[in-house]
Amino acid sequence: MVAYCTAVDSLHDLDGLCDVFTPDATFDLSGIGLPRKLGHAGIREFFTAVFADMSHHAHYLTNFALTAYEGDRASARAYIIGMGRSKAGNEVTVNGRYYFDVVRTAAGWKASRYTMDFMMPLPGSLAVIHADR
Amino acid sequence: MVAYCTAVDSLHDLDGLCDVFTPDATFDLSGIGLPRKLGHAGIREFFTAVFADMSHHAHYLTNFALTAYEGDRASARAYIIGMGRSKAGNEVTVNGRYYFDVVRTAAGWKASRYTMDFMMPLPGSLAVIHADR
Amino acid sequence: MVAYCTAVDSLHDLDGLCDVFTPDATFDLSGIGLPRKLGHAGIREFFTAVFADMSHHAHYLTNFALTAYEGDRASARAYIIGMGRSKAGNEVTVNGRYYFDVVRTAAGWKASRYTMDFMMPLPGSLAVIHADR
Repeated sequence: MVAYCTAVDSLHDLDGLCDVFTPDATFDLSGIGLPRKLGHAGIREFFTAVFADMSHHAHYLTNFALTAYEGDRASARAYIIGMGRSKAGNEVTVNGRYYFDVVRTAAGWKASRYTMDFMMPLPGSLAVIHADR
Repeated sequence: MVAYCTAVDSLHDLDGLCDVFTPDATFDLSGIGLPRKLGHAGIREFFTAVFADMSHHAHYLTNFALTAYEGDRASARAYIIGMGRSKAGNEVTVNGRYYFDVVRTAAGWKASRYTMDFMMPLPGSLAVIHADR
Repeated sequence: MVAYCTAVDSLHDLDGLCDVFTPDATFDLSGIGLPRKLGHAGIREFFTAVFADMSHHAHYLTNFALTAYEGDRASARAYIIGMGRSKAGNEVTVNGRYYFDVVRTAAGWKASRYTMDFMMPLPGSLAVIHADR
């Protein structure tokens, strides 16, 4: 999850983002009003657009919890404070939770499913910043 | 401490809250102008009221430090960013520290004493939100 | 890094600050427009002035990552939300990253180099608060 945030906050590292996920991962931000994407191609598509929009990102992870773990599968949750500023000058901070389902692969643990929800009310500016995503 | 925040942020899980504490725990928020409660009954009383007031909670834990540890007793500190929004629409963010004294029991480590202090000035709205607690 | 923040947030503990660093450490905040200091004397000088200015501090560390590790040397990165309030009443929050190069010594791991950068735009008030540093 830290690697995911590092890539998100790089504002350019699409390979680093894909490296966090299995090739067929479900990347589903519909819980916060953003798209659901499938696999590395979908993840690249989403972040290509996000990175084109944003000039600054800072995603702070806390409150890690392993919520399931058996064999080569696990589920983890963390809290997130996600800050962003768009090139147009809009700033947004979101307060929520990340949920990662992960599987053990030959290349280490990878996320097969990622979802998010909000803990504090959705700021209106998120929709403005990512209006076309 | 993560389990405590998870229960606080559930806005309903009184059993989960009690499960963090010993039956005779001291739950003392007098350091931030809130009540001091004793045991599971006191904790239930406090959070029944808080959960009735609040529509949103998000409590972010960081900077964990074990400040004492010997045998079956330990003390831990963490920083907290605590966000809340009341059903009446008041929002508050508190920046402080949690202090947990914990003891090893047959059911795992439980908190026998919990206190808190502030690191940044006390926002006025905390008193407003929890005026009757 | 937690010990560093604990000392920074104590608003007085110069010995605790020096204890985090090797005697000849490079303490370099030039990346955020603040000074570069050398060794314990420089660190004491910087924080003597900071502590004289500030009435409140709260520095939240997240997203720890070990970015290098070989033998008795390592590099670590963490995200930081740094909050401060000056005695004059100015408040500032900075969102960035800490970078620590650390070495194993007879007294444990110590930081030989510390730098910082920002993830969100530099707030103007940081310059105001630490104008003479």
